[in-house]
Amino acid sequence: MHAPGDVRVEDRPDPEIVEPTDAIVRLSATCICGSDLWPYRGVEDVDHTLMGHEYVGVVEEIGAEVKTLKVGDFVVGSFVISDNTCEICRAGFQSKCVHAEFVAGTIGTQAQKARIPHADGTLVATPGQPDPELIPSLLAASDVLGTGWFAAVAAEAGPGKTVAVVGDGAVGLMAVLAARELGAERIIAMSRHPRRQELARFYGATDIVEERGEEGVARIKELTNGLGAHSVIEAVGTQESFMQAVGATRGGGHLGYVGVNHDVQIPGIQLFFAGIHTLGGPAPVRRFLPELIQLIWDRKIDPGKVFDLTLPLEQAAEGYRAMDERRATKVLLTL
Amino acid sequence: MHAPGDVRVEDRPDPEIVEPTDAIVRLSATCICGSDLWPYRGVEDVDHTLMGHEYVGVVEEIGAEVKTLKVGDFVVGSFVISDNTCEICRAGFQSKCVHAEFVAGTIGTQAQKARIPHADGTLVATPGQPDPELIPSLLAASDVLGTGWFAAVAAEAGPGKTVAVVGDGAVGLMAVLAARELGAERIIAMSRHPRRQELARFYGATDIVEERGEEGVARIKELTNGLGAHSVIEAVGTQESFMQAVGATRGGGHLGYVGVNHDVQIPGIQLFFAGIHTLGGPAPVRRFLPELIQLIWDRKIDPGKVFDLTLPLEQAAEGYRAMDERRATKVLLTL
Repeated sequence: MHAPGDVRVEDRPDPEIVEPTDAIVRLSATCICGSDLWPYRGVEDVDHTLMGHEYVGVVEEIGAEVKTLKVGDFVVGSFVISDNTCEICRAGFQSKCVHAEFVAGTIGTQAQKARIPHADGTLVATPGQPDPELIPSLLAASDVLGTGWFAAVAAEAGPGKTVAVVGDGAVGLMAVLAARELGAERIIAMSRHPRRQELARFYGATDIVEERGEEGVARIKELTNGLGAHSVIEAVGTQESFMQAVGATRGGGHLGYVGVNHDVQIPGIQLFFAGIHTLGGPAPVRRFLPELIQLIWDRKIDPGKVFDLTLPLEQAAEGYRAMDERRATKVLLTL
Repeated sequence: MHAPGDVRVEDRPDPEIVEPTDAIVRLSATCICGSDLWPYRGVEDVDHTLMGHEYVGVVEEIGAEVKTLKVGDFVVGSFVISDNTCEICRAGFQSKCVHAEFVAGTIGTQAQKARIPHADGTLVATPGQPDPELIPSLLAASDVLGTGWFAAVAAEAGPGKTVAVVGDGAVGLMAVLAARELGAERIIAMSRHPRRQELARFYGATDIVEERGEEGVARIKELTNGLGAHSVIEAVGTQESFMQAVGATRGGGHLGYVGVNHDVQIPGIQLFFAGIHTLGGPAPVRRFLPELIQLIWDRKIDPGKVFDLTLPLEQAAEGYRAMDERRATKVLLTL
């Protein structure tokens, strides 16, 4: 991305092994993330930045110290590099690894190949070569599914719980799927977009709320005996959506937030008197990858349906436009 | 409190039973809270407000529906009224009870007697009439100990954990005590006040950090192998202290915050990239009262040492001055 709104597909040198813990992955598919729209729209700085942080593909080369992967393995990677051995990783927070590095920006996986540092700690091999029909779902695990899943875990979605999901983008939809898999009793999707409402219902939403902001909060309270939801997931990242999520959470309830906050200022006093648990940030996708890959492999979940536009990598610019204009929820780029 | 800085002890009508779930308590002791200084200093509005929300005493009269208490019982109450039967109470968040009401302001326990609504859900009787020496500790359970305990539980203090406590007021000191009781391995008290440092060490602090703000954060990181503390307790409520607490928490760690926030604006993006759990707000003291009363009764903890000035109720105004000028950590008022 040369500048906001200016996406170009260009030839670049092939990546090479630099550190002995690196792997080179030949990508099978990649995609465009909702968070890629922040720089596209000029909200985040961008200047000739390598884009893309979601990826699946085949290991083409490994460094001398890579132990768990071999050339030819099909792998899914997290959007944050992690060693998966440090104290923070062992506690399940690989996105805060002492060696954490964002794939977006410096690596960039909207590409044919990528050099992945700390390959053992970042990549997970699938049980075998996947059927082509599984590729979109495995690709979703790399970020949107992993992030939605983390949000649902952070919000402590589970049996007997009412879960409200703020945001009907790909991550919000994946959070609906995750809440259902985690056994939530009732899942309220907050969306005013007919096609996304439909997809939310497909993934397990039991209720749809179209209202936003304070009206949205009032509607959630109405549906929960005046108390608010046990579990609320924030998957947008604006001031309105964040405070809507805080307001929709019952006292003592759990808010999981994964929408990348931009210019959000949380009034401390409001959060204080809400009396809620919160957990958020870049999702430690690596924690969940083995489980998510297995669920996909066994055809128990179908996150790949979140992709509603497929284009060749060369047409990435059109993919960005389609997402920016909300003509597409999520764009898969083929190679 | 007629106005900021203007505290007067005046005769008022005796309280009477209004609802059948009420009890009238004749107070044995009361005290002044750090949070009483907010209106005293004009940070919170105050206009002829009934002050005080910490109390112990003897039940003098009960309404027809009070079941668990009888006249003559010695009781400790929470600073928030709760029915202790609603869904929120049963989940342990009595301070967000559907019948929650703050004792401060409308009831006011810097007084000889108080009408306590929802007596069954708010008051806990001690195993018998306490020795006078136990009264300060039982009074501490009503708020500062209960609040510090909640903060330590919210921060998930426990075996193997390093806990940092931001704030050396009574609540911060009680959080140190709680962290020790919960089995924390290392407890870092952030304080630059020699007498409070000493008290922090008495209650279980293993380390003292005098630096504040970003320097304080850097010092905590230095002491924790660059990672930050597992558990951080915020017991002040200013912008600097809150962000110091966020910064001192390791990725995936837990922040428990109980300092009443005033004019704190939390930058969403900073909280997001911190990747931490948070839980805070007015403490559900009622949840912990039975356990805390027993620990005090059995002489296992000595929270009463947090009172370093005792005055008769008539001299409440002098008590406020002493706390405002930091000549006293916490003032007990006798009756």
